[in-house]
Amino acid sequence: MTEPVRIGVVGLGTVGSGVMQLLSSSADHIARHAGRQIIVERAVVANPAKDRGLDYPAERISNDVSDISNDPSISVGVLLVGGLEPARSMAIELLENGKDLVTANKALLAEHGPELFALARARGRAIAFEAAVAGGIPIVAAIGECLAANRIESIRGILNGTSNFILTRMEEDGLDYADALALAQAKGFAEADPSMDVDGTDATQKLAILAHLAFGVWVPWKDIPRVGVDTLDIGLLQDAAELGYRIRLVAIATRCQGVLSMRVAPALVRIGTPLAETRGAFNAVSIVGDAVGPMFFHGLGAGQMPTASAVVADIIDTVVGRAAITFRTTGVLSEESPDLTIGGDTQECHFLRICVRDRPGVLASITGILGEHGISIASMLQRAGSGETDEAVSLVIMTHRSSTTAMAEAVATIDELPAALEKSVCLTVLDQSSLDDASPAA
Amino acid sequence: MTEPVRIGVVGLGTVGSGVMQLLSSSADHIARHAGRQIIVERAVVANPAKDRGLDYPAERISNDVSDISNDPSISVGVLLVGGLEPARSMAIELLENGKDLVTANKALLAEHGPELFALARARGRAIAFEAAVAGGIPIVAAIGECLAANRIESIRGILNGTSNFILTRMEEDGLDYADALALAQAKGFAEADPSMDVDGTDATQKLAILAHLAFGVWVPWKDIPRVGVDTLDIGLLQDAAELGYRIRLVAIATRCQGVLSMRVAPALVRIGTPLAETRGAFNAVSIVGDAVGPMFFHGLGAGQMPTASAVVADIIDTVVGRAAITFRTTGVLSEESPDLTIGGDTQECHFLRICVRDRPGVLASITGILGEHGISIASMLQRAGSGETDEAVSLVIMTHRSSTTAMAEAVATIDELPAALEKSVCLTVLDQSSLDDASPAA
Repeated sequence: MTEPVRIGVVGLGTVGSGVMQLLSSSADHIARHAGRQIIVERAVVANPAKDRGLDYPAERISNDVSDISNDPSISVGVLLVGGLEPARSMAIELLENGKDLVTANKALLAEHGPELFALARARGRAIAFEAAVAGGIPIVAAIGECLAANRIESIRGILNGTSNFILTRMEEDGLDYADALALAQAKGFAEADPSMDVDGTDATQKLAILAHLAFGVWVPWKDIPRVGVDTLDIGLLQDAAELGYRIRLVAIATRCQGVLSMRVAPALVRIGTPLAETRGAFNAVSIVGDAVGPMFFHGLGAGQMPTASAVVADIIDTVVGRAAITFRTTGVLSEESPDLTIGGDTQECHFLRICVRDRPGVLASITGILGEHGISIASMLQRAGSGETDEAVSLVIMTHRSSTTAMAEAVATIDELPAALEKSVCLTVLDQSSLDDASPAA
Repeated sequence: MTEPVRIGVVGLGTVGSGVMQLLSSSADHIARHAGRQIIVERAVVANPAKDRGLDYPAERISNDVSDISNDPSISVGVLLVGGLEPARSMAIELLENGKDLVTANKALLAEHGPELFALARARGRAIAFEAAVAGGIPIVAAIGECLAANRIESIRGILNGTSNFILTRMEEDGLDYADALALAQAKGFAEADPSMDVDGTDATQKLAILAHLAFGVWVPWKDIPRVGVDTLDIGLLQDAAELGYRIRLVAIATRCQGVLSMRVAPALVRIGTPLAETRGAFNAVSIVGDAVGPMFFHGLGAGQMPTASAVVADIIDTVVGRAAITFRTTGVLSEESPDLTIGGDTQECHFLRICVRDRPGVLASITGILGEHGISIASMLQRAGSGETDEAVSLVIMTHRSSTTAMAEAVATIDELPAALEKSVCLTVLDQSSLDDASPAA
């Protein structure tokens, strides 16, 4: 076996500690795959004095990233701190000092990816980031390498475990949103400040990264339409269930006739289909490639050891030299400008909940507005009231496939009706394939 | 962009033609991922005169593999012929002449893998074989690279699309085995001679390859216990369905306390769980890693373009140099002898169908035999007969977890009872997790 390779780890939080444990407990196994022993030469944390319960010498822990970047014996920097700063500065310092970078920080890549990727290329270094999206699911490798022969047609992913945990507890235990969120926090699935998870930011940042790999375009994550689970109430889930659907926070990127549509939003998925059956803190990604057809991946998208699994795989890839090749070849894409328009309007089936005063003519107004916008109704569910005039009633409408733009306009008009009681909720209904709903190739 | 790379393709059957089409129709896309243009310099087939409807110059097609192996401009040989010979001789000739090898031939690798791998290593060449297992599903990369930080605990796969198509048609259309097989042949999912598919050979060869990647041991495929779908009848599927299960041909490799158990056999999987919901010609693989937890992959496991997708991904990997690294690092495993015993006995729940003459005392004999072998009954289903003595009745028994060896002995004893009418059928019942049935890591 060749000389050991020395790495530096920045951040010993949940994931960082998991990486240290895995590198230690499976050292021989990992060394076989890497062709050499991997030694954590140095760890850098904000507070070196804190006891993390790790069997790692205190004298190798400092609070200064330059202890890694200036150490010529270290070739790989493993950046496992969250947020944008000081993560960005640390990444730059590591790359500028000739270290390859492994990171799980999706916010950093979504925000500063182009800058960091360009710097890495300029310095001849690699950035590996399998752990940044969908935790242990090897979706970055799948898209960037394994499906490289395919033109990707669509990606649909459940990419935020916190949101999915909340939705599952709402639908299975009948909890309302606030209680499900509190439970997620109590169980450690949600941060004290869960806003990045529940408002869809986290899933959107991950989608921006996946779409870059799949379609070769860099869409700033803030430009991607985004709705989080914090807009949902238990009644919506119950209405969906009555129609045979569950609600999932789905990150979608679809290419159709040269237009790439992207969004993150709660959507209806038919019970029994793979995304609907993705429960709790799990993640799932469904990809359609022009040659391979539909592929589905499911696994733990977060958590200490699943994420550590992906980080250590990236460390191995970097040590053996695969990461450098992958970074160079997938990097080629980012220098091109694929012939794709980023567009919003798509044709979808919609689920619409409207809350109005029960007055004569209200239903006619609503259906009239929908008709004027070219939207045809597939089915309608009216919560039976007592029949009194001006009573609040809720209408649930499923539409046939129609333009999302037209739908948004129709909803805005409906919400201006004098009888309208609250803002309508409009969710797309995914015409999601069941696992076998694809014509097998010859 | 660097100089084009020249490859030679051996075999222009279904998969070979698909590879030619994909390399041609997605040439620019593939060139971007490979960092260079890929040119099929030469194709070799048994009958060069045959019209394959390919837009490829006839003068580049010959029937002599040495036209590839002796061409110094060609660096990669893509071997897409099935069977053992002349595939083996061709593989050896290509490797000995310094070509990297890409192949989809699982029988070749299962039978001659050690010889070919050793030759490739000796010549400093790589063998890439993603397409040999589960078609378009990137399971070879997942196990060998993406989950490299994990000790794999188990693999459970639906690896033969033909068998799964037959089972799905039996359960959904009520066809008996022979009719479902005939339909599979009519639809092109089964060969004229389907024996390698339906007797479990194909799935067993694939399991041998996956187990090698996951556990580092090379178990000759003929040593793996194997039962095919050709042993099933529609009554078994109906009995299973009545109990809430489907029957799938499952390839299993499980490591437990230093013992590796492997088998391919029809097994009961609970309706609603991922393997049960894998229908038609699809493949699926469920893997549990010690760090990553449960991972599930689903996609088209065969067919022209899904397989071509994997072959071309391997060609790209070979061209960019990733395949060489992967082959070297995963190859390390085959030189070690992991501390694993290959064992047969495992603790499983069983489904048992016994057909006996309805005589007084028969049930007591059967339950007595099971009891003597330490097997306890979880539930029993007796097909109500008319009550006449000596009438044939069928008993369906579900057992609690018990030794497979003890079970086999008990079944042999039961089949010797004077009242026994036909050979009993004993299938394992997988305690398969549903997609979310795993405690999420912290």
